[in-house]
Amino acid sequence: MRILIIGGNGTIGRPVANHFAKENEVIIAGRSEGDLKIDISDSTSIKEGLSQIGQLDAIVCIAGEAKWANFDELSEEDYYIGLRSKLMGQVNLVRLGRNHLNPNGSITLSTGILADDPVVKTASASMVNGGIHSFVQAAALEMENGIRLNVVSLGVVQDAYEKYRDYFPGHNSISMEKAVNAYVRSVQGRGNGQIIRFYE
Amino acid sequence: MRILIIGGNGTIGRPVANHFAKENEVIIAGRSEGDLKIDISDSTSIKEGLSQIGQLDAIVCIAGEAKWANFDELSEEDYYIGLRSKLMGQVNLVRLGRNHLNPNGSITLSTGILADDPVVKTASASMVNGGIHSFVQAAALEMENGIRLNVVSLGVVQDAYEKYRDYFPGHNSISMEKAVNAYVRSVQGRGNGQIIRFYE
Repeated sequence: MRILIIGGNGTIGRPVANHFAKENEVIIAGRSEGDLKIDISDSTSIKEGLSQIGQLDAIVCIAGEAKWANFDELSEEDYYIGLRSKLMGQVNLVRLGRNHLNPNGSITLSTGILADDPVVKTASASMVNGGIHSFVQAAALEMENGIRLNVVSLGVVQDAYEKYRDYFPGHNSISMEKAVNAYVRSVQGRGNGQIIRFYE
Repeated sequence: MRILIIGGNGTIGRPVANHFAKENEVIIAGRSEGDLKIDISDSTSIKEGLSQIGQLDAIVCIAGEAKWANFDELSEEDYYIGLRSKLMGQVNLVRLGRNHLNPNGSITLSTGILADDPVVKTASASMVNGGIHSFVQAAALEMENGIRLNVVSLGVVQDAYEKYRDYFPGHNSISMEKAVNAYVRSVQGRGNGQIIRFYE
């Protein structure tokens, strides 16, 4: 398979890319580094990136940001950071990316446990994750040519646990092996419209 | 109680307003008609509207729109109709409205069954509803002065069933009585951060 992994140099993206690279051709995209540059918050950047790489069998997005802050500090504009990047970035990736997929290809997006079990400071981040969950279920109904669309929603992964544990009181970490498996399930399984939740 | 109902002249808003008006002071706001004009897609309009009415005990929003269209016809800009109106309109209402509430007041937002069980043509509408569900759970963690935040998510209501039934194959309608009760549960109950789902 030819697999494009956007954010394939990140904390989760790197082990996912390493896993798939064992038996597949993996192309890594990122905002600043990788085989090619894609900034998902800019649909022109998505279009240009995709136009450079020919047909794919799978697109995996492990990228996108949203602002974390106390609710009373989040301005209207702050919410639009997440709306443009993690929300519409991933929506646009589906809109534009499916035309670059071979029949029976797949698109895998990423959210996180905040969609279902938020913590303080995440009014914006949780909102964006929850929006993607419902989007995936809806858009999956209209995929064609056997193309599948799923989203992976993980708890705090082991390699980010030290950094984030104070924000997630009582949350348990997800091993990197399990994190990788969530993406394998989406890419190599046959599910469509699934929210693949790996929480502990 | 003094209750502001935004969208209080709509299919669901009117019976909700009539119910609460029996024992409360109800102020109805709408884009074009009502006791005062509020267009939730414009945060300046929300601010101006709220500044005219003094302190409240409850704010109920049964307003907001999103574009319905086949997935391959929805442009990037089409998604922003829902993001500005039903999503950020309701977020801004919480941001700005809570400062106009008496202690132990409440804010009730509205979504719908699409958040959990979407149908064709609703990639944008479902996304917006799902985003609000996660937002409410997150923002509710940071409400102060006893202020509560909930969201009502209804199936297709009886009075809109004929108009929408072809879009919702096999969905059952929700009686207007049940629809009203969902809002009563939010406003007069003690729950915070709840997604009040009334599906059949």
